[in-house]
Amino acid sequence: MFEAAELDHQVTKADYKREEAELRRALLEVQRALGEQRRFPVLILIAGVEGAGKSETVHLLNEWMDPRFIEVTGFAMPTEEEAAHPPMWRFWKALPPKGRIGVFFGAWQTMPILERVLGTLGAGGFAGRIDEILRLERMLAAEGVLLIKYWFHLSKAQQKKRIKALEKDKGTSWKVSRYDRTLFEHYDDFIEVCEPFLRETSTGDAPWTVVPAADDRYRALFVGRHLLGTLRARLDAPKPTPAATPAVAAPAPPDKVNVIRALTLKQELSREDYETALMEAQGRLARATRHKRYGKISVIAVFEGNDAAGKGGAIRRLGAALDPRAYRIVPVAAPSEEERAQPYLWRFWRHVPRPGRLVVFDRSWYGRVLVERVEGFAAEHDWRRAYAEINDFEEQLAGHGAVVAKFWLAISKDEQQRRFKEREATPFKQHKITAEDWRNREKWDAYEEAVCEMVERTSTGIAPWTLVEADNKLHSRVKVIRTLADMVEEALKR
Amino acid sequence: MFEAAELDHQVTKADYKREEAELRRALLEVQRALGEQRRFPVLILIAGVEGAGKSETVHLLNEWMDPRFIEVTGFAMPTEEEAAHPPMWRFWKALPPKGRIGVFFGAWQTMPILERVLGTLGAGGFAGRIDEILRLERMLAAEGVLLIKYWFHLSKAQQKKRIKALEKDKGTSWKVSRYDRTLFEHYDDFIEVCEPFLRETSTGDAPWTVVPAADDRYRALFVGRHLLGTLRARLDAPKPTPAATPAVAAPAPPDKVNVIRALTLKQELSREDYETALMEAQGRLARATRHKRYGKISVIAVFEGNDAAGKGGAIRRLGAALDPRAYRIVPVAAPSEEERAQPYLWRFWRHVPRPGRLVVFDRSWYGRVLVERVEGFAAEHDWRRAYAEINDFEEQLAGHGAVVAKFWLAISKDEQQRRFKEREATPFKQHKITAEDWRNREKWDAYEEAVCEMVERTSTGIAPWTLVEADNKLHSRVKVIRTLADMVEEALKR
Repeated sequence: MFEAAELDHQVTKADYKREEAELRRALLEVQRALGEQRRFPVLILIAGVEGAGKSETVHLLNEWMDPRFIEVTGFAMPTEEEAAHPPMWRFWKALPPKGRIGVFFGAWQTMPILERVLGTLGAGGFAGRIDEILRLERMLAAEGVLLIKYWFHLSKAQQKKRIKALEKDKGTSWKVSRYDRTLFEHYDDFIEVCEPFLRETSTGDAPWTVVPAADDRYRALFVGRHLLGTLRARLDAPKPTPAATPAVAAPAPPDKVNVIRALTLKQELSREDYETALMEAQGRLARATRHKRYGKISVIAVFEGNDAAGKGGAIRRLGAALDPRAYRIVPVAAPSEEERAQPYLWRFWRHVPRPGRLVVFDRSWYGRVLVERVEGFAAEHDWRRAYAEINDFEEQLAGHGAVVAKFWLAISKDEQQRRFKEREATPFKQHKITAEDWRNREKWDAYEEAVCEMVERTSTGIAPWTLVEADNKLHSRVKVIRTLADMVEEALKR
Repeated sequence: MFEAAELDHQVTKADYKREEAELRRALLEVQRALGEQRRFPVLILIAGVEGAGKSETVHLLNEWMDPRFIEVTGFAMPTEEEAAHPPMWRFWKALPPKGRIGVFFGAWQTMPILERVLGTLGAGGFAGRIDEILRLERMLAAEGVLLIKYWFHLSKAQQKKRIKALEKDKGTSWKVSRYDRTLFEHYDDFIEVCEPFLRETSTGDAPWTVVPAADDRYRALFVGRHLLGTLRARLDAPKPTPAATPAVAAPAPPDKVNVIRALTLKQELSREDYETALMEAQGRLARATRHKRYGKISVIAVFEGNDAAGKGGAIRRLGAALDPRAYRIVPVAAPSEEERAQPYLWRFWRHVPRPGRLVVFDRSWYGRVLVERVEGFAAEHDWRRAYAEINDFEEQLAGHGAVVAKFWLAISKDEQQRRFKEREATPFKQHKITAEDWRNREKWDAYEEAVCEMVERTSTGIAPWTLVEADNKLHSRVKVIRTLADMVEEALKR
């Protein structure tokens, strides 16, 4: 893996000058095409041993190309804000949009490798982190991100020589910190951890490219040429055709029973009992979210349901129990232009709350496996992989201490018709009902099938679905708030 | 995830009879089409809780379809032979060929789940095993295997009821073992482990399908319908078009230096010094492979190199040092029909040695990234993913205690021409030289590029490449045997 990188390479000054001029011209040209087409984002990871010219290379890329369309983000120890979110949050936040180049200086691999070298992370924990990285990178690749991973390598002797040279020169000796010297002492341990890491995280979609870093000119041309070749290949490539049919179909059950039809949608609850029960549930939730340990957890409440199932009404009663400074409602509609330039889950990641906060998603990431699936807005290939990606996402939320509560509000076809008609007849409700709502009703069975598969694939121990019988709004509101109160109280006991 | 499976489902006897008849007809028909087209193999995994009718279902599949083309393999505790190989070996061995259906009763998930429930496997180790499974299943899917994973589920109450019913009836009470009762006591622990397992190993390519198992007739029709639908969808699907261009190109280095060109191909070694050195190296290897701890390790020696680089001669000198009963040479040529009906690595897995044995591969799995790449026999998409798959394969070999030694024998273009001509002029060597060998020479640079990328991507700490300067055959033979002796001696010290 490192054999080629440890060879002695040399490029003469004259050769360098000539090729550099040509490279700059060509790189600028592909960067322009990238920005004009806006088909995919480019994410360059810069990693490797200390003293191998990583920052010099990043400077050079900025010099060679138009720096306005390159965003460099350095990741060191997580800030307090970053530490208040799941580990991958800070990387999601910094992803470049389509048409742009993002450079991550140190990325998701830095902390696991460092912790492993220092021995604070065991072999098993390291394997788990590698698994997370593989899933993330796979998802990014599936979303069209061009992921280019450079690993700057020096042999031990080469590194020693470079550090010595830097130290000797008064103009550069500041570049060598005590930290670098410590890392140098751990060179062998570092390589012992990195070597299997590179092996296991080099995939067909996102291989590591080891950069021979000992010779400055060679290193610069190596990266420049590779970057140019990779960008050109991707720009010239035809749009990939997604795999035709999914490998495994959803089962067609031999009877009509499913998790939705098994519900008794009309639940009795008198107005009087409702008032008492609602008050009691809101009180519990209010106390729980003011508990001193609540500052350690966050709450994510997801609302999905049939049109006119009463999501808005339930969310309003929920909000009534909360400190208005400590919660936020995120209504999910069509993605913005900025959101469309990012991987699908990006627009939800940006709203992930920090501990002590609650976020309500009024519709959510489940749109992909509901409306986008049924209406054909997402290719089958894409919504099928979404189940696993959503589970990964929620695992990260739950793993970071979030309560993830998901509510499906279910009403009958008859009850929906009654509510639609009522909306049409009530002036202040007319804006809520459109021709599209009536059209969606025609696909009732397809939606039901999508809901059942969604529950099947994404109702998990860490993020369960609560199916809410919603023909009687009074019942459904109480059930939602009670369930959430139960879940928060449970989390406070942990 | 289990919500739907825990609902009460019922199918009347009459409905069952009617649908069963239709299902059988349809399943037989798709099974016939599967066998005629021979485009892909089908692998069905049967897993889930005890007492959920797994064996009944497998019986039924055999009854419904033509059992001659269904191969059922049950995996329990590994046998001695299985334990003498890497963990995945027994599964590879049992893979169905294209056009056939394989049923794995218990598979790669059984042991990790069991060990995790019993607490002998930690969370980290479990994550590592999940990672292995994901990689394996991804590879199988990429190779075209239709992987259908059924998870038979019962709620705790349903399981209790079934076990009670079985115990009560004298005709079935034998079905409930003490082991089943123990497992029943661990129901909650089991579900706690399985639930995240199912979540993390459900991917777009190979999701788990949870089978509601409480009602016999429902369960049978559920599986039958799902299987039929999945087989039909895949049979009807057009051949998937592979992704057009790989995401990340290989770097074009800015100078002519590479790991091959950096070698001094002609190394001096006199005939006299050769005799002494060869004898000494063979002696070391002989002693090492007769050491008492040698019974704990296996050795896999891979030979690749330019045409006429002297692989055969080196292998002969190597064999001379070994006990002929304890080593085997596997010459790798075009795959057999049986091998062509399997995933690419299958034909190499079958030759993986047990401890105390040595296998020489005369050419190897690297054909995919060498000749198949250069000659265009493998799509770019396929040879690009091969690097990661090969690294996974070798990781399993090394992880099981194998010494994996890989030799690239390099000669210069001039030296090759000299040897080709000599072969043509020497009657007993004429069979070794064909028009194809001369044609291959024309692609010298393309091969060199492929070799450099191969070394870059697959020379790892656990399975390094040794580049052998082979213009002087005497030198190369000694280097090969010395290196292997070093590696075996090193392994004996572990």
